[in-house]
Amino acid sequence: MTLPTPLQTWVEGAAGSGFDVDHLPYGVFARSGEHPRVAVRIGDFVLDLSIVAAADMVDTHALYDQPTLNPFMAAGPTVWESTRAWITGLLTDETERDLVEPALSPVDSVRMLMPFTVGDYVDFYASEHHASNVGRIFRPDQEPLLPNWKHLPVGYHGRSGTVVVTGTDVVRPSGQRKAPTEDLPTFGPSRRLDIEAELGFVVGAPSAMGERVATADFARHTFGVVGLNDWSARDIQAWEYVPLGPFLGKSFATSISAWVTPLAALDAAWTDLPGQDPEVLDYLRVEGPAGLDIEVEVLLDGEVVARPPYRTMYWSPAQMLAHTTVNGAGVRTGDLWGSGTVSGAEPGQRGSFLELSWGGTEPFVAGGRERTFLEDGDEVTLRYSAPGTGGGRISLGEVTGRILPAR
Amino acid sequence: MTLPTPLQTWVEGAAGSGFDVDHLPYGVFARSGEHPRVAVRIGDFVLDLSIVAAADMVDTHALYDQPTLNPFMAAGPTVWESTRAWITGLLTDETERDLVEPALSPVDSVRMLMPFTVGDYVDFYASEHHASNVGRIFRPDQEPLLPNWKHLPVGYHGRSGTVVVTGTDVVRPSGQRKAPTEDLPTFGPSRRLDIEAELGFVVGAPSAMGERVATADFARHTFGVVGLNDWSARDIQAWEYVPLGPFLGKSFATSISAWVTPLAALDAAWTDLPGQDPEVLDYLRVEGPAGLDIEVEVLLDGEVVARPPYRTMYWSPAQMLAHTTVNGAGVRTGDLWGSGTVSGAEPGQRGSFLELSWGGTEPFVAGGRERTFLEDGDEVTLRYSAPGTGGGRISLGEVTGRILPAR
Repeated sequence: MTLPTPLQTWVEGAAGSGFDVDHLPYGVFARSGEHPRVAVRIGDFVLDLSIVAAADMVDTHALYDQPTLNPFMAAGPTVWESTRAWITGLLTDETERDLVEPALSPVDSVRMLMPFTVGDYVDFYASEHHASNVGRIFRPDQEPLLPNWKHLPVGYHGRSGTVVVTGTDVVRPSGQRKAPTEDLPTFGPSRRLDIEAELGFVVGAPSAMGERVATADFARHTFGVVGLNDWSARDIQAWEYVPLGPFLGKSFATSISAWVTPLAALDAAWTDLPGQDPEVLDYLRVEGPAGLDIEVEVLLDGEVVARPPYRTMYWSPAQMLAHTTVNGAGVRTGDLWGSGTVSGAEPGQRGSFLELSWGGTEPFVAGGRERTFLEDGDEVTLRYSAPGTGGGRISLGEVTGRILPAR
Repeated sequence: MTLPTPLQTWVEGAAGSGFDVDHLPYGVFARSGEHPRVAVRIGDFVLDLSIVAAADMVDTHALYDQPTLNPFMAAGPTVWESTRAWITGLLTDETERDLVEPALSPVDSVRMLMPFTVGDYVDFYASEHHASNVGRIFRPDQEPLLPNWKHLPVGYHGRSGTVVVTGTDVVRPSGQRKAPTEDLPTFGPSRRLDIEAELGFVVGAPSAMGERVATADFARHTFGVVGLNDWSARDIQAWEYVPLGPFLGKSFATSISAWVTPLAALDAAWTDLPGQDPEVLDYLRVEGPAGLDIEVEVLLDGEVVARPPYRTMYWSPAQMLAHTTVNGAGVRTGDLWGSGTVSGAEPGQRGSFLELSWGGTEPFVAGGRERTFLEDGDEVTLRYSAPGTGGGRISLGEVTGRILPAR
């Protein structure tokens, strides 16, 4: 038996780059003085889809001459599929070179913008290791997992208006904080500012109110995947969150990648979930490999401080979508949900500083010194990679942000 | 001393109607075959602002030929003020009659639509009586109010994609429910479906990320007020909400009124808060009357079952907005926040069936029989009234919804 030869692109430098022709993530870019448009990434280039679609007389060309991915995402899976096939053809057929080259620009020469307008933003809590670590840190005398945790993917709504694109600075938030040892809350900058390394999922095709999205219909509604850092102020959160959940401790900023990896690029990344016990209720059942084998890296000022493995997540993205809609809530194009912090079983696999420093009590070393929570000037980058369908690895959208002092 | 004579409108039937010339709420209407447009209500008529503004050559006319109030709301307080003055002139000056009459339609002859596109939806928990009642019902052995409750207005993000306009039916949600006496959760229709009688506040002029909105700047950002029913499935909520707050128990539907009462119409309704002790932190301080004297009525199938007084609310709307932005989160045009259930001190003043039936243990009588939670076919209407600047009362936007059986 011989394996099919992977497709090869004529774009220089793209082969094996993480942005080879088996990836093709979408984004929105602008050059100074021009209006924003939809692009796809190949190697170190952005391909302006609006130009090449108009030149190639593609009937969906109006979907790419847009300041967000929303119209394209709303067009649904048939259009997603035909667009990907068309782009793949352009980039692998040497005879298309004259058509395509005028629409290519070095990625460093353009500015990447927020890729889509967010509808509702929901954040889950789907890593058993993360939820258990948080339970042990905050409630050391109790069972680390709460009774509902293995019956449903716990989630809550976050603030969609403060979802920002990678590269946006994050101002240290201020608010009410009260340490357990203090009698009264005080006002001031957060002293326990943290990251949450997550994966984000973006809805393309909407569902109607009153209609449930079955786990089997996940790919009919989900357009793709982004990197996501759910910045968190642990001290603000700890004081405010009982009984209605996190509010200001999370709402100041959530960063996502500029590139959205379409689900089709993850065909080789599906893997079995680690296992669910007790058995889930019918509406949460999944068939076959429902997890994703995606490696995450957390970098603090360029140094890797953790490598959380997404394949260890307890709940699958299809279960999260089915759960969100089981009560009849509709989803809209641009709805975004985060997986929750990705943490593996090992200390070096934890996706938050809260866990890496065990609540601030066991500092970790980075930059040659002991660290706990985020300091002003810190730059955090999240990187993601997954097996591509071409046999190599693809580099999912990177997310970077730097902490500015409180105002 | 003589009081100024209130302005009088030439529109028949409007005087003393609750929609007199001192009210002038805004909405979006459509007639079959026509595109939606912005209207103001006077008596039992809608005034099509797009027609009259074009005829009167008003330079903001494009703001009214729109399917939502968002462009008008985004224009800011100067435009809100000049628009109100212009409309007041049209409706009180008999010589404008020929200009205005062609743009008037009986309110029953048009269809009212969702008045604005919701950005983020936040729900607060600002009634001390409500929070105390809920605490006593769910945690009978503990202090009814949690330690943070009098230090900050507790709130959380809800689902903006399922905010619907009055008159929209509400399908009974299904989900995971687990009674305290049960070992495992089961799936099925909610057995404890409830209302929450609230007031909603709508953001007009946005604020930038990183910028705080001071309590004194409330009226520069807040466009107006709507009636709001935050439908709640208590059994789904009880099982899911620890530790990250309500999700599916609330996300299936939130109903708002079709009419948005501008803040200027509430000038005579401001009243002192009942009193805040302990003193609040600086960013939450308010000067002068910060509460609203608005009467709420809860009707079940046309019968009044509760009369919650909004003036009893502990936290003011200006404090809710200041709190939302104190961490640097921006607000956008169309952001909506609910006050939380309005409940007064007396049993007949409770704004939820949970409280009216004391957790289902003390049924109340309506329609000649004992009632606890919502039944299929029930129709709930919320009505609101406040003192108007003309000396009478204004009728704020009514909110109605009927329960359909689970699908």
